[in-house]
Amino acid sequence: MPTMKSGPVWEGKTVYKATITVRLKESVLDPQGSAVQGSLHSLGYEEVRQVRIGKTMEVWLETADFQEASDRVDAMCRKLLANPVIEDYEFRLEKGA
Amino acid sequence: MPTMKSGPVWEGKTVYKATITVRLKESVLDPQGSAVQGSLHSLGYEEVRQVRIGKTMEVWLETADFQEASDRVDAMCRKLLANPVIEDYEFRLEKGA
Repeated sequence: MPTMKSGPVWEGKTVYKATITVRLKESVLDPQGSAVQGSLHSLGYEEVRQVRIGKTMEVWLETADFQEASDRVDAMCRKLLANPVIEDYEFRLEKGA
Repeated sequence: MPTMKSGPVWEGKTVYKATITVRLKESVLDPQGSAVQGSLHSLGYEEVRQVRIGKTMEVWLETADFQEASDRVDAMCRKLLANPVIEDYEFRLEKGA
């Protein structure tokens, strides 16, 4: 499996990389997932029982410290990146140049 | 941060859950990521330096063993779920009812 290199470099400042995953809440129907499941079945992958599709976002941000980065990313998720009515979000944060 | 419950249950057979992440190769431009970055800036998150968007797919499949599940998921990625020209993929596999 291919592995991914770390993010870009910015003038030696503290850049954090957030990897955010946004998924539909379990109670919400996933027509896109059902469509992919149908395609997999037509390609012969009958063993597939269910498919759920979500988004992954890598965000590089430049902040003073880890807590500030975490608070800001959480706010970005609540305000823009995830729809709180139908989606759940989670993220991990790494210190990276 | 909200946590996610495990997948659905199927008659006690061995169901594996693959969590697949598909991202654009680093050399490929990401207009969607740039658009999200612009929106975050307009919301006041000037500290954001770059955004890259990808897909995450949860696939439940019923197979005899772990190796077969891994081989089949890899084939699904190569044949349908990831475009080998512009995308990279990786996945993790969990045993789950």
